Amino acid sequence: MTLPSGTKPRFVYSFGDGVAEAAPEMHALVGAKGERLAEMTRLGLPVPPGFTITTQVCEHMLKTSEFPAGAREQIQAALTLLEARTETTYGDPDNPLLLSVRPATPVTAGGMLEAVLNVGMNRDIAVGLAARTGDERYAWDCYRRYLQDYAAVCMGMRRGILETLLERAKDGEGVYDESELSAPALEGLTEIFKRKMIESSSALPPDDPREQLWASIEAVFRSWNSPKPVGYRNAHGLPHDHYTAVTVQLMVFGNMGEHSATGMAFTRDPDNGEKRFFGEWLPNAQGEDVRMGLRAPQPLNKESGTLPGDRVLEREHPEAYRELTRAYRVLESHFRDMLRMAFTIQQNKLWIIQTRIGKRSPRAEVRIAVDLAREGIITTTQAIRRVQTQTLDKILHPQIDTDSLRDVVARGLGASPGAATGHAVFSSKEAVEWAGRGLSVVLVRSETTPDDIHGMLKSAGILTRRGGMTSHAAVVARGASRACIVGCLDLELHPDERYMMVGDQTIAQGDIITIDGTSGSVMVGEVETVQPKASRELEELLAWVDDVARLRVYVNADTARDCERAVRFGAKGVGLCRTEHMFFETGRIDIFRQMIVAEDEAPRREALAKLMPMQKADFKAIFRVMRGLPVTIRLLDPPLHEFVPHGDREIGALAEVLGDTPEVIRRRLESMSEINPMLGHRGCRLGLTYPEIYEMQVRAVVEAACEVMNDDGVPVNPQIMIPLVSHVRELELLRDVVRTTMTRACEAYGVNLQLAVGTMIELPRSCLTGGQLAEVADFFSFGTNDLTQTIFGISRDDCGRFLPFYVEMGILPIDPFVSLDPSVGELVEIAVERGRAKNPGLELGMCGEHGGDPRSIAFCHKAGLDYVSCSPFRVPIARLAAAQAALEASS
Amino acid sequence: MTLPSGTKPRFVYSFGDGVAEAAPEMHALVGAKGERLAEMTRLGLPVPPGFTITTQVCEHMLKTSEFPAGAREQIQAALTLLEARTETTYGDPDNPLLLSVRPATPVTAGGMLEAVLNVGMNRDIAVGLAARTGDERYAWDCYRRYLQDYAAVCMGMRRGILETLLERAKDGEGVYDESELSAPALEGLTEIFKRKMIESSSALPPDDPREQLWASIEAVFRSWNSPKPVGYRNAHGLPHDHYTAVTVQLMVFGNMGEHSATGMAFTRDPDNGEKRFFGEWLPNAQGEDVRMGLRAPQPLNKESGTLPGDRVLEREHPEAYRELTRAYRVLESHFRDMLRMAFTIQQNKLWIIQTRIGKRSPRAEVRIAVDLAREGIITTTQAIRRVQTQTLDKILHPQIDTDSLRDVVARGLGASPGAATGHAVFSSKEAVEWAGRGLSVVLVRSETTPDDIHGMLKSAGILTRRGGMTSHAAVVARGASRACIVGCLDLELHPDERYMMVGDQTIAQGDIITIDGTSGSVMVGEVETVQPKASRELEELLAWVDDVARLRVYVNADTARDCERAVRFGAKGVGLCRTEHMFFETGRIDIFRQMIVAEDEAPRREALAKLMPMQKADFKAIFRVMRGLPVTIRLLDPPLHEFVPHGDREIGALAEVLGDTPEVIRRRLESMSEINPMLGHRGCRLGLTYPEIYEMQVRAVVEAACEVMNDDGVPVNPQIMIPLVSHVRELELLRDVVRTTMTRACEAYGVNLQLAVGTMIELPRSCLTGGQLAEVADFFSFGTNDLTQTIFGISRDDCGRFLPFYVEMGILPIDPFVSLDPSVGELVEIAVERGRAKNPGLELGMCGEHGGDPRSIAFCHKAGLDYVSCSPFRVPIARLAAAQAALEASS
Repeated sequence: MTLPSGTKPRFVYSFGDGVAEAAPEMHALVGAKGERLAEMTRLGLPVPPGFTITTQVCEHMLKTSEFPAGAREQIQAALTLLEARTETTYGDPDNPLLLSVRPATPVTAGGMLEAVLNVGMNRDIAVGLAARTGDERYAWDCYRRYLQDYAAVCMGMRRGILETLLERAKDGEGVYDESELSAPALEGLTEIFKRKMIESSSALPPDDPREQLWASIEAVFRSWNSPKPVGYRNAHGLPHDHYTAVTVQLMVFGNMGEHSATGMAFTRDPDNGEKRFFGEWLPNAQGEDVRMGLRAPQPLNKESGTLPGDRVLEREHPEAYRELTRAYRVLESHFRDMLRMAFTIQQNKLWIIQTRIGKRSPRAEVRIAVDLAREGIITTTQAIRRVQTQTLDKILHPQIDTDSLRDVVARGLGASPGAATGHAVFSSKEAVEWAGRGLSVVLVRSETTPDDIHGMLKSAGILTRRGGMTSHAAVVARGASRACIVGCLDLELHPDERYMMVGDQTIAQGDIITIDGTSGSVMVGEVETVQPKASRELEELLAWVDDVARLRVYVNADTARDCERAVRFGAKGVGLCRTEHMFFETGRIDIFRQMIVAEDEAPRREALAKLMPMQKADFKAIFRVMRGLPVTIRLLDPPLHEFVPHGDREIGALAEVLGDTPEVIRRRLESMSEINPMLGHRGCRLGLTYPEIYEMQVRAVVEAACEVMNDDGVPVNPQIMIPLVSHVRELELLRDVVRTTMTRACEAYGVNLQLAVGTMIELPRSCLTGGQLAEVADFFSFGTNDLTQTIFGISRDDCGRFLPFYVEMGILPIDPFVSLDPSVGELVEIAVERGRAKNPGLELGMCGEHGGDPRSIAFCHKAGLDYVSCSPFRVPIARLAAAQAALEASS
Repeated sequence: MTLPSGTKPRFVYSFGDGVAEAAPEMHALVGAKGERLAEMTRLGLPVPPGFTITTQVCEHMLKTSEFPAGAREQIQAALTLLEARTETTYGDPDNPLLLSVRPATPVTAGGMLEAVLNVGMNRDIAVGLAARTGDERYAWDCYRRYLQDYAAVCMGMRRGILETLLERAKDGEGVYDESELSAPALEGLTEIFKRKMIESSSALPPDDPREQLWASIEAVFRSWNSPKPVGYRNAHGLPHDHYTAVTVQLMVFGNMGEHSATGMAFTRDPDNGEKRFFGEWLPNAQGEDVRMGLRAPQPLNKESGTLPGDRVLEREHPEAYRELTRAYRVLESHFRDMLRMAFTIQQNKLWIIQTRIGKRSPRAEVRIAVDLAREGIITTTQAIRRVQTQTLDKILHPQIDTDSLRDVVARGLGASPGAATGHAVFSSKEAVEWAGRGLSVVLVRSETTPDDIHGMLKSAGILTRRGGMTSHAAVVARGASRACIVGCLDLELHPDERYMMVGDQTIAQGDIITIDGTSGSVMVGEVETVQPKASRELEELLAWVDDVARLRVYVNADTARDCERAVRFGAKGVGLCRTEHMFFETGRIDIFRQMIVAEDEAPRREALAKLMPMQKADFKAIFRVMRGLPVTIRLLDPPLHEFVPHGDREIGALAEVLGDTPEVIRRRLESMSEINPMLGHRGCRLGLTYPEIYEMQVRAVVEAACEVMNDDGVPVNPQIMIPLVSHVRELELLRDVVRTTMTRACEAYGVNLQLAVGTMIELPRSCLTGGQLAEVADFFSFGTNDLTQTIFGISRDDCGRFLPFYVEMGILPIDPFVSLDPSVGELVEIAVERGRAKNPGLELGMCGEHGGDPRSIAFCHKAGLDYVSCSPFRVPIARLAAAQAALEASS
């Protein structure tokens, strides 16, 4: 904001008597507060009159240490106007005008800037004020407050220095509250303060009120560049060059005795969002006193919750209270949101000091948005925009009370959201045992394998030392909605001795720990958690959302139970059903392992024949839940050795089942191990080398579909998805396998099944050859986890040693596994463009972890995808994000 | 080739008396042979006259089973002309015309089609021919030959049936060679043949010569669709619809007694390429006899190598020999290549039956191309195009005699070319021991690690069960030019018991095995190998190559010795110096391991300080060899744990050095292990998390460069290459580290060093962000190994279980790690385009394995790269390929 050349610049905008010079939309010049004060003045609300000095003056002053030419004159003129409006004279002991000098920034500065109140005081004026008001206590209180502010803001003294003296004076008089200090004590304090100022700064505040004003304005401007605001702007990525304006306002006093007061009111309940006027106040106090919490505030009204003995504003100041409720209605309908108002009652007259959009809890955020829309104050699309997606995340999972986060002893990757508290156990067997005794447990492992499934499902939370967002632990935990942290390298595990070290702290089996799967924080002991609550308002909001969104939201779900939950959350289909997860259950994993270690086709087919009815039963249950909504079934994807047993006992057990020696099994398993399994023998490569596996799976799908249709009369819509395709020939060959198997299976049922066949797009090569693939695919589903891994050359399981460092150092602006990287996006766009060009009817979705990330969903909307698919608990978030993306794109 | 509509089609083209109707470039219609016969006729060479029936007739006949309208008439007319030219009459027993009916295909059919000779024979004509020539033996020999051909080609009898009868007749007369059979015996055979034909086919060849001709022509056409030619075309990817023509020619007879003969001549030596007329002949025989090798052939001339008792054509048929040498000169200067000629001498008259480009050995291929260019017969650019790049591969490494390949017991990936024979050993220790006793060894391991280096360098060849083209074994073997096979899954290793199983064959320590690192074949026992020979001609060819090529060829080399070799081979710089390989040597690996297991920066720096002078000495040696040519030094790239010790003994040793317990070391190593190391903590990620490593390496480079310049007065041109960059920030930060380190190091020497800093482009993301990277890079070097791995999502180390299957099944047309995949190419092009747009001076190279692959080099040329870099032994091949690519692009 530089000075316009040629025209005579305007630096000061006055307000008062229902008239304000600053126009709306002028906050870059006068700050948000300056704009709102002007607005409130025009609305006829009782705002203390004053004027705002623009951000241009701040900029000029910070760069040159001087006021720009003409600014002082304009300030002087505004002061003269203010004197006229208030019928007082600045610096006149007999009828003094006292001023507040406050910062007013275009965007929030986090309350980090300084203000000076009671400007225009000196000893003479204090005496005059005492005489004029007959309130000596008030007069000296104003003076000592002024001295405290001036010392801190204009002279740079630590506030603590004078506050210690204030405490000492209270002790001297034996009072607890500073409002109880006597006038002589306060007068004495002003002298004590001045001596201290001489002593520590060799200076005193000027007696001349003009000098006080110039110094205060300059000090507020200068506070823009002091360390705390600069740090705040850095931390929040805010620019340093929008500067602050300064408002100079008539001081009004809540500390002028029993007919005076100060308080804070919310137009609605900031905790639960209920529509009730709500707040607290302090008799005979200035505004800072409420904020600083030095005295116990009193309720505004009955709705604010009263206890016996409370002093209720509505009762004690009925006139001011009526005026206040009028102001609340005017303001809410003008600003169309829940507001926080600071007010002062000076000798029974109400003043609105300032107002701003009120902070609120996640719950309240949803309720207020929905209520405002219902009341016709905002539209439903505005309500949709008002609710942040993170808010839903907080509503749908137990949350750690943020105060507790200071006790964090270790950090990992938050892999499945929510909080869990329980007894630490170091093996799945013990998890099952302890849980069997009715205890809540947190399972701590180096990493998990299918053998841990049982223990994981019995645990409230899972914590692993290794692994990433797509590791076994993370995937299972998200599916089962257990809180989970992975990649927590700070742990040193000794599972055999049943303890772990975190730093030099020992945590033994049975010790209580708490994990926050949202933030990845590990805490020792029990920690306060906030339980999620369902709400009618959320349901109403989500109902509106679907009218706005273009993207459909599907769910990544492998069980009928997850599907049920997702349908309740509004999922419109299953975007990813990972068939391998169906093998994890006890009883099945053994047969699956027989299949894996089979040397030849015959024993492999034998094991598959046993697995087939199990998969079929699972698919039937899912189809019944989804009732004709699309169910996208991904054929076996991960490397087989992910399922193999570890440890002597399990290998021995498998050997016994197979009638082989453990040595033979071990050698076979060794020969299956891979150096880089992510890039190894998996996905459609398995399907091509062992076609009998995919044949079994397709048969299970088709038979399940036919039986559900025939026996239950329920419509079905299964879709077969081929994973890890890199070359069109792979897809062609496997599509033929699917079709042949389907035709054969359908004949037995006399059913004419429609079976879409599509492919995951999860490798750069499949993006680049999207045109070729689209000619043989009915749909693409972008697997952005693997796509991110291969585009970056980063294994999600191994990035713990450098990726957090990268994000911290700003090498990567954001973890690309959380939010879609632009280069990943570019390849997705290439695939979309080439795919649609060859096959305009191609269905396009995304089923990676990004499917639940609002920023990535916005990308998917822009890229023209048809759906995103995410884990059950993220479905509502994705629906909201999809709607917001649509609104954003159309605005 | 369909019939032109409207015009009267021409189906027959005659040749004879120096006149030929078929124009040049007409081989699609008359076949290569038809074209060449016409050409030779026009050149005035003694070609037996005749005519060619076009491929259109073949197509029509195969589709309709009939000759097209007008064809029979045209053939009849051509036959009449032929009768006039030869002054004989077809079917006239007193002066008969005998014909050969041979296939003539537009492109080679691998000699798979059938021919019928001596057409126009019957008993009466045999009697007449005997009378007219006074040679009864000849007449009956022609008849029995005709019967054999007709039975096989026109009647479909197995040739063996009549041949058995021929053998029986030879036994009956007690002769070894069929030329010794008496006339009565041959006459008797014709009757025996006919009885057999009745017996097995209930049919006889027609007596009518016309019928014989139609049937023979039709049979040759039909042989186009018989199983062997169809299989040959499938195997070589040749189209099935170009069909064959048929040539009908005057039969000439080498079997008309002592003044007749047949033979085969080469215009140059097909084995070593020497310019000498060369060949062999058989007195009194027909052409087939030479081909079938039934009798021992005799030398053409002294240059063909004579033994006492040999019958030399030059001496026995001086006139015909003179005529033949004249023909050779005419033909070679006309066809401008080394030719093979089939000839017949009929009663002292020479006939050239056919000629074709002669097959030759790799050595001869180079020598002939160079000699022809020197002689002015072709240009040097033609010579460059004439030599196949694979040919150089064969010349530069020992080769297995192809006959031995039938004894292959196992196959893996040919990872480093050449053949090696030696005693199998199963540990590096034993390799060193056995080699110390002066024995040649082949080291067999599951996979190799740095601990094996010593043993590998002592071995003639290396064979591993696991790993791919970029595995440790493969990389070390190529660098050291040892034959190497990796990923040989057929082996079942028992190193502790010192044996392995291949199928059910046991190979114990000390057994001789042979490996072919070119084809990936493993053989048991010693196998004939062909040793490579240097040649002046190759050097001359390569000198021409550099005038033509635009791409420069650099070498991937890590030692001064490799650099020396590469400079001798014509490398123009080092495109990839892998600094980690310098740590593999004994003595260094221990210090390197200390560095790796260091928990903190201080001990890490301590180990680095010890490594620094070693690296510096290596760089100095390299700079001295390269004398100012660019040396591109890649900073540490692979995951650290690739270097860690395995096994109790080694861990114990390291623990002792470090004064820690093995347990501590083991735990530390475990914590370093990664699930997917390819995508883990490596490359610039190491450089950023442990900056002291790159600092040490850059200091070693800079100090080495300064000292070589100052002390040796040798110019230097080092370039620093940052590996595995995925985001521009990584490169920015590390470029700053390099520059700061350089500036500091240079100051001490008072030298102003130019140090280019560039990056490997080996991840999809670095291709896509090529524009951003180019703004901070002096050069890009495409690492197409990793790029292929990430684009396909295939680990080179783990693809053994499916990639060979993919190539075999045609899912992938070619192994993408051997020849650049089009999608990889597309990303390279994107990077080139975006990079050059932002930085027109950007230097572009390729240093993956593809840098030595001719097809990939052709791509690099087209993509506008500046250089390719490959292993030392591939430098000549790459230079040739670069020149051929330039010629291809400009033609």
